[in-house]
Amino acid sequence: MTHPDVLVLGGGIIGLAAARELALRGLRVEVVERLPAGAEASLAAAGMLSPFSETISPGPFLDACRASRDLWGPWVATLEEETGLTVDYDTSGSLLVALNEEDEAELDRALRSARELGEQADEMEIPALRHWVPDITPEARRAVHLTGEHRVDNVQLCAVLALAAQKLGVTIHYDSEVERVERRHPEGTVLVHGRHWRKEARLLVLAAGAWSGLIPELPPLPVRPVRGQVLLLGGVEWPWRGSLRQGHFYAVRRGATGLLIGATVEEAGFDKHNTVEGIEDLLAFTRRLFPGIGRTRLETVWAGLRPGTPDDLPLLGGIPGWPVLAATGHFRNGILLAPWTAREVARLAFAEGEEIPELSPRRFLSGS
Amino acid sequence: MTHPDVLVLGGGIIGLAAARELALRGLRVEVVERLPAGAEASLAAAGMLSPFSETISPGPFLDACRASRDLWGPWVATLEEETGLTVDYDTSGSLLVALNEEDEAELDRALRSARELGEQADEMEIPALRHWVPDITPEARRAVHLTGEHRVDNVQLCAVLALAAQKLGVTIHYDSEVERVERRHPEGTVLVHGRHWRKEARLLVLAAGAWSGLIPELPPLPVRPVRGQVLLLGGVEWPWRGSLRQGHFYAVRRGATGLLIGATVEEAGFDKHNTVEGIEDLLAFTRRLFPGIGRTRLETVWAGLRPGTPDDLPLLGGIPGWPVLAATGHFRNGILLAPWTAREVARLAFAEGEEIPELSPRRFLSGS
Repeated sequence: MTHPDVLVLGGGIIGLAAARELALRGLRVEVVERLPAGAEASLAAAGMLSPFSETISPGPFLDACRASRDLWGPWVATLEEETGLTVDYDTSGSLLVALNEEDEAELDRALRSARELGEQADEMEIPALRHWVPDITPEARRAVHLTGEHRVDNVQLCAVLALAAQKLGVTIHYDSEVERVERRHPEGTVLVHGRHWRKEARLLVLAAGAWSGLIPELPPLPVRPVRGQVLLLGGVEWPWRGSLRQGHFYAVRRGATGLLIGATVEEAGFDKHNTVEGIEDLLAFTRRLFPGIGRTRLETVWAGLRPGTPDDLPLLGGIPGWPVLAATGHFRNGILLAPWTAREVARLAFAEGEEIPELSPRRFLSGS
Repeated sequence: MTHPDVLVLGGGIIGLAAARELALRGLRVEVVERLPAGAEASLAAAGMLSPFSETISPGPFLDACRASRDLWGPWVATLEEETGLTVDYDTSGSLLVALNEEDEAELDRALRSARELGEQADEMEIPALRHWVPDITPEARRAVHLTGEHRVDNVQLCAVLALAAQKLGVTIHYDSEVERVERRHPEGTVLVHGRHWRKEARLLVLAAGAWSGLIPELPPLPVRPVRGQVLLLGGVEWPWRGSLRQGHFYAVRRGATGLLIGATVEEAGFDKHNTVEGIEDLLAFTRRLFPGIGRTRLETVWAGLRPGTPDDLPLLGGIPGWPVLAATGHFRNGILLAPWTAREVARLAFAEGEEIPELSPRRFLSGS
């Protein structure tokens, strides 16, 4: 049996992006994914690429978000070229809509901090808003257009990314749950055991999302599932192709006439169901922003589990004592951070400089 | 190519029940179904067997509903015996719950008319209601238990019924849309054309639900689709195994912990989507009756198209000038009326007596 240089645990956007990047650098890479096909949160996400939407304060994490946002355009172009496929990646930006005083204060904060960062942020007059989003509520008081918040069809992207990785020689093993991992001495390798298989590698990349803390024998990373419920509307004919935000929810275009409404943020363990109150909240948001949309098709509902961490920041770096790089805990920013994370994983795998202390798993594993 | 005695158009509960009944009577029967598997409204229904819930007035239709309700128990037992499978058929009854004065008036009407018919209907004290349905709202003022309203898992039933029919020699052709039908003279038979097939039969049974008016060449029956949206909750642990009704909506147990919430009644053509307002209405009903149920799982939503008619009554009987028996237009009562309709189809196929004038298609086709 041949063994790869690197084994990636997790076939979501982070694992696939890292696998492709490492293969580009000349390593033999294999990916193992628990599911029979696809991935978890990477497919459940709405695909907003918002580097400053989630009340992120200045620091290395914000820098990473903005850097990754800037990588997205070239990354998509490269993936399209590598595969001959296309990805619905849109740079229209997002519209922050204010319906009340609280929203207006939030909108002013967003405007100010975007401008401080040198990001483009412009007031949009209500008639223009109504042109772009004909269903917008008459209650809309103000709107701000954030040019630098993009969006991607993450389902398409993951399929294209998997193909791109495979074209570079990456093997993806679906339906392959990891049962435990083992350090091998004196080789310094890691042996990964599945039900009917085992694989040895010089390096393991742990990109198992909300499941990253559950790999037996590895020091348990403090990653927990944070549920997000989403619903998809269909038949929405607007000129606007980007996204909208108000309060804690957003509306993101998907495909030709789709509109994703998301997302709840819930502590519900590994329960991936929708709930009565989750869908109620999403529908209430929908009606607040688009009151006349009652007869619009509700295509489907779903939920996903984001990998949350105690400080809401990713876990990116080595696990002490193990030949393992963690690339997980991206919480609400996994899609956004994928291209940047892939580069970071490659940089750390080739020992090109230090970890970013604020993101290093060592901040939680200091005792080990 | 061999041809059957009877060709049934439509593999829903009505078509399958009729096919089985005719096969029991010794005829060679085949069924053609447009879909690759399964059926339309028969699978979308909630499975309430309510002979007097839908403001039905005395007459042959009410008689049919009650007769069919009485046939259900023996029919299920026979189907289970024929197939060795089991069907979740429940005779707990239904609870009419009053939350306001209007509901109370409706409840009194239901109580009175049930008793006039000799059906059992008993007031249920609120503590008993709370025992059976722990999530019931404190707003519940009164409840009536209608013993004679049963329920069935119609998805299970359709699968078992298809198998029972097949065991009696009925062939079911899925993925077989009918393109047109043709009378053959002087044979007096009917020739049915599909895309890559045609079949001749002495008798055609038209049981195509909401699609029954669209068979080219046949006199168009006045059947139209009436959309019903449904949602399924999961993890509901109540002693109560029957159904509940309040206003125009109902809640029906499904499986071990499921609770179906239905149903809207909408004119939307053949659009089988859910809508924002449809799901809003079902969730609002859910919260009215069960206010503490917010964290309950919302498993899925769907919609189906009932076959409506101008007078809300079925179309059961011959189509003048054609060797065709219509068995369609059952609107909200297709599941309930299946065993009775099957017997009626057999009775009419063997010319045992007259059609029921109130249900005969002739009431709409007198000009032809």
